[in-house]
Amino acid sequence: MIEPSFTVGLLQMACVGNKQANLDKAAGLVHEAAARGAQVVCLQELFSSEYFCQREDSKYFDLAEPIPGPITNQFSDVAAQLEVVLVVPVFERRAPGVYHNAVVVIDADGQLLGHYRKTHIPDDPLYQEKFYFTPGDLGYPVFNTRFARISPLICWDQWFPEAARLSSLGGAELLVYPSAIGWHPAERFTKGKSQHDAWLTMQRSHAIANGVFVATTNRVGHEGPEGAGLDFWGQSFVCDPAGQILIRGSVDDEEVLLAKCHRGLIEQQRREWPFLRDRRIDSYGDLARRIRDEPDDIVSKSRTPE
Amino acid sequence: MIEPSFTVGLLQMACVGNKQANLDKAAGLVHEAAARGAQVVCLQELFSSEYFCQREDSKYFDLAEPIPGPITNQFSDVAAQLEVVLVVPVFERRAPGVYHNAVVVIDADGQLLGHYRKTHIPDDPLYQEKFYFTPGDLGYPVFNTRFARISPLICWDQWFPEAARLSSLGGAELLVYPSAIGWHPAERFTKGKSQHDAWLTMQRSHAIANGVFVATTNRVGHEGPEGAGLDFWGQSFVCDPAGQILIRGSVDDEEVLLAKCHRGLIEQQRREWPFLRDRRIDSYGDLARRIRDEPDDIVSKSRTPE
Repeated sequence: MIEPSFTVGLLQMACVGNKQANLDKAAGLVHEAAARGAQVVCLQELFSSEYFCQREDSKYFDLAEPIPGPITNQFSDVAAQLEVVLVVPVFERRAPGVYHNAVVVIDADGQLLGHYRKTHIPDDPLYQEKFYFTPGDLGYPVFNTRFARISPLICWDQWFPEAARLSSLGGAELLVYPSAIGWHPAERFTKGKSQHDAWLTMQRSHAIANGVFVATTNRVGHEGPEGAGLDFWGQSFVCDPAGQILIRGSVDDEEVLLAKCHRGLIEQQRREWPFLRDRRIDSYGDLARRIRDEPDDIVSKSRTPE
Repeated sequence: MIEPSFTVGLLQMACVGNKQANLDKAAGLVHEAAARGAQVVCLQELFSSEYFCQREDSKYFDLAEPIPGPITNQFSDVAAQLEVVLVVPVFERRAPGVYHNAVVVIDADGQLLGHYRKTHIPDDPLYQEKFYFTPGDLGYPVFNTRFARISPLICWDQWFPEAARLSSLGGAELLVYPSAIGWHPAERFTKGKSQHDAWLTMQRSHAIANGVFVATTNRVGHEGPEGAGLDFWGQSFVCDPAGQILIRGSVDDEEVLLAKCHRGLIEQQRREWPFLRDRRIDSYGDLARRIRDEPDDIVSKSRTPE
C-alpha cells in the first residue's frame, strides 16, 4: 500500500577530523530524527571527515573505504533498528587509484539497495574534487525504498538540470542532494547572498521543472585557517513540487530538520503544469554536445557595417 | 568591435482587439525605448491581438499572417529608422492549416535575420494553444545581431531547461522570452504568489545554469469576462548571468523597462562557476526519452514485507 505521505529528515552538522566521532554524531542524530517521525533520513556529503578537498594531498585517499564497508555496516544496523531509510554518503574506495564521491541508499530493513557516484565533479579553489574523485559511472539511479522512490545526487550535480531531469524521468519522488558548500570568508559579505540565492534557486527550479520534492543537506561550521578556508552555509532544506520551501535550516547551527511530503502534490503539480507531457524529445539531440559551434550551428550572421 | 555592454528594452503593455492599434502602440513604445537608449527591444508574445487562446475558435486563424508580412514590414522600418534590434512575435501563417507561434529577429538595419517557432506548446484551460499552433521545427537558433547574440524562446518554453541549455550552447548572450501569462482570477489570491514565484525562479535558473542574461516580456491587463478570463501578471524582467534581477516591471502598468547588460559578466560567471566545463555529455542520452520506465531502468526494488 502506498501511503499518502512520507517524512524526510535532514541532518545538518559540523564535521571534525575524527572519523568515528562524525559517524557516531550522525548516528545519534538519525536516532533523534527517527524519534521525531522521520522515515527517510539524509546525511551530508562526505560527513565522515572534514571537507578535505580544500587542498590536494594524496594522504586523504586513506579516508576512503569500500562499499560495503565500515560506514555502511554501522548505518545498515541503525536503519534496521529504527526502520528508517538512510541516504548515506561514502568516500568510496573502488580500486587503488579509483575513488568516488558516492552515496548509499539503505532500506528500512538495513538492506543496501545500491549506490550512486557523483557524476559532475567540480574543481575550483578550495573545491579541488577532480584530484580525488573519478567521475561517476552509475548513471542516475532511482531507489524504490520502503517509504519513497529516491534519487540521490551530490552537491555539484545540483547545478545541472540534466541530472535532475534524468532522475525524475526515472520515477523519483524525491531528489536528495547531500552537499558541502560554503562561502570563502573573503567573499561572504560581498558575493555571499547572491551565491546562496543562486544555489537555492537552481534546486527549487529542479522541483518545479520536474514536479518532484527536493531535499538538500549541507554542513555547518568553519573549516580551514582563520580568515581563509570555508564557512559552510548550512541552510539544508526541503521544497515541494511547486518549489515552495517546506523547511529550511539555519546558517550556523547543528540541527535535525523534518518535512512531511504529501506525494499527491506530485500528481497535482504535474496535472496543473504538465511539462513532462510537452517535452520535445525530438529536438534535444544536441544536449549531448559540448557546445554548438560548428558552422552549421550559426543560423544567422548579421551583416553589420563594422 | 564588441562593445562591453548592450542595453535591452522591454515593452510591457495591454493588448486590445484592434490589430493596428496594438502595432501602433508597440511601435510608439519602441520609439520611447530607443530614445532612452535601448539597443535591443523585445515585444510581447502575440502582442498584435488579445490572447485568443483562451478559447478554441477557428476564426482566430484569420489573425495569422506570413513572414515576411505586414508586421515585419512595419517593424523592419522602425528598426532601420531607429537603428535598434527588434524581437517581434508574429502569429505565423505558414500554409493553410499550419500556423505557428513565432518570433522574428530584425537587425538594426531593418534586415530580417530569421525567426523562431515556439517549440513547447501548452494546452491548459484558458491556454489552449495546441489547437492553434503547430509545434516549432526550427530548433533553437541564435541570431548574431548588431548589438548581441540573441536566442528567442517563447513563453511555455521557459519551463524547459533543455531549451535554455540548447540556446546557450549555441552561443546566445541573451535569452528572450516573449510571454503571455497570467492568473485565473479565481486562483490569483490563493495560488497566485506561488505560481509567479515558480515562473520567476525557473527563468532565473536558466540564467544561472547557463551563465547568460535572460529577458522576459509579459502583457498586463485583464482579458475575458469579468471574474473569469486571465489577469496577465506583467512583471517583465531582465536578470544577469548570476540570476540577479536587474529590472522588473509592475503587475499592472504599461511601461518600457531598460537594463544595461555588461557582457563581461557572462565570462566572469562562467569562470567562477564553470558548469559548461563539467557537463557529462556522455550521460545525457536518456534526455531524449519520454520517461525512463523500461524494466532495465528500475535499478533497485526494495523487498519490503508489504
